[in-house]
Amino acid sequence: MHKLGILLSGRGSNFLAIADAVASGRIPDAQIAIVISNLAAAPGLAAACERGLNAIAIETNRRKRAEHDQEIIATLKAHNVDLVCLAGYMRLLSPGFIQAFPQRILNIHPSLLPAFPGLDAQTQAFEYGVQVTGCTVHFVDEQLDHGAIILQRSVSVLPTDDPHTLATRILDQEHIAYSEAIARVLSGTYRIVGRRYLPKSQP
Amino acid sequence: MHKLGILLSGRGSNFLAIADAVASGRIPDAQIAIVISNLAAAPGLAAACERGLNAIAIETNRRKRAEHDQEIIATLKAHNVDLVCLAGYMRLLSPGFIQAFPQRILNIHPSLLPAFPGLDAQTQAFEYGVQVTGCTVHFVDEQLDHGAIILQRSVSVLPTDDPHTLATRILDQEHIAYSEAIARVLSGTYRIVGRRYLPKSQP
Repeated sequence: MHKLGILLSGRGSNFLAIADAVASGRIPDAQIAIVISNLAAAPGLAAACERGLNAIAIETNRRKRAEHDQEIIATLKAHNVDLVCLAGYMRLLSPGFIQAFPQRILNIHPSLLPAFPGLDAQTQAFEYGVQVTGCTVHFVDEQLDHGAIILQRSVSVLPTDDPHTLATRILDQEHIAYSEAIARVLSGTYRIVGRRYLPKSQP
Repeated sequence: MHKLGILLSGRGSNFLAIADAVASGRIPDAQIAIVISNLAAAPGLAAACERGLNAIAIETNRRKRAEHDQEIIATLKAHNVDLVCLAGYMRLLSPGFIQAFPQRILNIHPSLLPAFPGLDAQTQAFEYGVQVTGCTVHFVDEQLDHGAIILQRSVSVLPTDDPHTLATRILDQEHIAYSEAIARVLSGTYRIVGRRYLPKSQP
């Protein structure tokens, strides 16, 4: 049984989509071992409790990033987490965190990376005037929104869109993409060549 | 009758697709008034001659960019060109060129801009490991691969791809996209809001 650790800071809509996918078997042979928020008030934390999941806040309390991260790492390890999924976790991870879970931390970003990294990617894309954007599930490395890409799904920008309607349609695709990417990674039937994610059967 | 000027440096496959679209009426009420290459040996120039089009080489001959561009501008103006289409033209345009045809110069780029500007965009995308790329037709402004986007078409990167197969599939989409974008611009039924290309009927 694969054990997932979820990190979130907000309402956790991607966490809820993952929880649904675990419950329905779309992410097979997996359970959510622990949900952690850096903010006690995060609605996603309350939602995790309501679903009967282990859910705790680990707040910064003025500690340095590395020190705060050490407590999170220890909590994840105590729950035997083998895959960490960032789901709207609004803090950068320290290098020590990334090294504690090598190629075992996933993030989702609401653009077709490498376009529009950072905050407000949907508004960035809207204002740039792209006609195709989307979302990206990727491994987390030391650089922001940079690690090897596991899955991307595209979304058309419509003439009638505003940043909000666009973000909503991207979010629908995020909910599909993240669970599929987690299932892929847990299956182990892939390899990374350079930065390319390839099915293991490929030559 | 709209008059197109084509600038190319190589085999001009996008030029040929445009010429076919003009001939078939997919670009309505238009003709190719002049094809110009900065290289006399460009196969696209010979292809233009074979089709009975006005086609000339205007080589640099060690002149400065602005001076070379002035001869090209004068030639385009002499042929009453009202839309300039870069089709694999491997030189940067001087500011004077861009000001001579404000919002009337188009380029096509083999990626979903703003991702992968510059040379070898298809290989850049392949090596980055994106799963969605494509092509972009955009207005030319003073910055490289930067002007407002008229049309983008997406292309999936396949596990079996290499940079060559990927570039070939992108090129197929370029041939569709460029003619459609030219028809859109010539129709005049659009407006640019910020950087966004919108149909004129939109509020």
